[in-house]
Amino acid sequence: MEISSSSFSRLVSPRLFPNDKDRLFSFDNGNNNKSNRITCNKNKRNLCKLIYASAQKSMEELGLDSKVDTLLDSVKWDDKGLAVAIAQNVDTGAILMQGFANREALATTISSRRATFYSRSRSSLWTKGETSMNFINVHDVFLDCDRDSIIYLGKPDGPTCHTGSETCYYLSVNNFLKHPEVEDSSLALTTLYSLESTISQRKAEIEANGNEKPSWTKRLLLDNKLLCSKVREEADELCRTLEENEDKSRAASEMADVLYHAMVLLAVKNVKAEEVLQVLRQRFTKSGIEEKNSRK
Amino acid sequence: MEISSSSFSRLVSPRLFPNDKDRLFSFDNGNNNKSNRITCNKNKRNLCKLIYASAQKSMEELGLDSKVDTLLDSVKWDDKGLAVAIAQNVDTGAILMQGFANREALATTISSRRATFYSRSRSSLWTKGETSMNFINVHDVFLDCDRDSIIYLGKPDGPTCHTGSETCYYLSVNNFLKHPEVEDSSLALTTLYSLESTISQRKAEIEANGNEKPSWTKRLLLDNKLLCSKVREEADELCRTLEENEDKSRAASEMADVLYHAMVLLAVKNVKAEEVLQVLRQRFTKSGIEEKNSRK
Repeated sequence: MEISSSSFSRLVSPRLFPNDKDRLFSFDNGNNNKSNRITCNKNKRNLCKLIYASAQKSMEELGLDSKVDTLLDSVKWDDKGLAVAIAQNVDTGAILMQGFANREALATTISSRRATFYSRSRSSLWTKGETSMNFINVHDVFLDCDRDSIIYLGKPDGPTCHTGSETCYYLSVNNFLKHPEVEDSSLALTTLYSLESTISQRKAEIEANGNEKPSWTKRLLLDNKLLCSKVREEADELCRTLEENEDKSRAASEMADVLYHAMVLLAVKNVKAEEVLQVLRQRFTKSGIEEKNSRK
Repeated sequence: MEISSSSFSRLVSPRLFPNDKDRLFSFDNGNNNKSNRITCNKNKRNLCKLIYASAQKSMEELGLDSKVDTLLDSVKWDDKGLAVAIAQNVDTGAILMQGFANREALATTISSRRATFYSRSRSSLWTKGETSMNFINVHDVFLDCDRDSIIYLGKPDGPTCHTGSETCYYLSVNNFLKHPEVEDSSLALTTLYSLESTISQRKAEIEANGNEKPSWTKRLLLDNKLLCSKVREEADELCRTLEENEDKSRAASEMADVLYHAMVLLAVKNVKAEEVLQVLRQRFTKSGIEEKNSRK
């Protein structure tokens, strides 16, 4: 599996602050308790320097300096020494935010595993989360074919946008052109998450207007017996595309049915698709059988 | 549902070239036959101008000019009149490429529904696909909270990268630091697609080395009966989390099992997750029951 949080962490900076006395707060398990937050906020101005220095130190210790230098040399920095850096959620694919990185910001991101940018307005390094504590925990970094654009692929600790929105992209041109007068905040959702959002809206509508003729999604949301019979039926139909050698498009269609009905079940259980994908990712840092045995 | 290819197309430019005589090739159904390709390549230099002019015309016809102007005025263009524009696959969430847009590029994208950028090296408008015919069909456009970063959320006709790669992001820093000497091309894959890639690798390994002790994934790939019994079993277990009122984490775990086993089944059938999500998206342009009836 390409994405492995553990492989990246083994490789670079398994511990940002190797000695406990050097640690302002735990970077390892999102274990940010209140007293640590206060300490961190007090020292906000020094935090970036500290992250950078610690990152440098751990890179030296791991002997990765020359490899990282080779990599940094290969980036086509623009006339201001910057490249575009895009933070993406490793589980959902959502584009969280976009900033710019200079050489130090990219080096810091690689070694600290916290998405770090260069703030053009403040002319300084800026680790996302240094104020809000909503860090973006970077699992891998990707460069594009031209080496002037970077993806920070990672897992956010919380909402990325300073407004409290999950991502910074919530103005839909489609919606604006339809209703320019309405203050709208539609996140840029890809298919699975649009479906999730629609199901969630149907659920809210049931609670608001109990009596109207329900849509199919609402009927499923209201009737666990119907919902479970559909989930089992669609899984069976998916299997039959294999057993009865049906064509590819039939298999895609049945899988879409499985996904849709299972997503309704998840909505009833208040489980987000992102939580499911996180479970899936964590399992795949181990081999299937090893993981299966560990659950027995 | 927020994403609706039809709603965006109804809204802006239902037909880029309203008169057949004006059309170099069909923009509507990816119907790019060979003679059209030749015409297009011959006229490459004029294509951008034509797309821009047609887009302008259709916006005027639809009376959207002033709304689009308001929107374009709200973008914080930088000192060169540019903003970052990121093209993202509406079904998979993959970041396809990143370029820059000026006012004309964004206006053209909105009206033509083809991802269009401003090429800094050529100082001209550039519609992705004007050479390769691999257009990115934009379903919606999003602006970020600062109004200086844009997402073109759409469906690519084919590989986006000029190298033939599906996306432009295929240099993994993780892999480079492990094996700097190996020429590697690992796409920036999010969880579901990493799983898909792993299953696909296992499938290839079975074909290459038939005799080794198979992993759990390989056993499933080799044994349809086992695979189908697991898909049915996991769907049943997911339902039981609802019927027996098990906790949320159990539901997430069972859904991960359903997804994993169903993804193996899709691999056996040679169906990509993207195809399934496309089916799902197309269904959600209609209401569930309406769609269900249309399939009967």
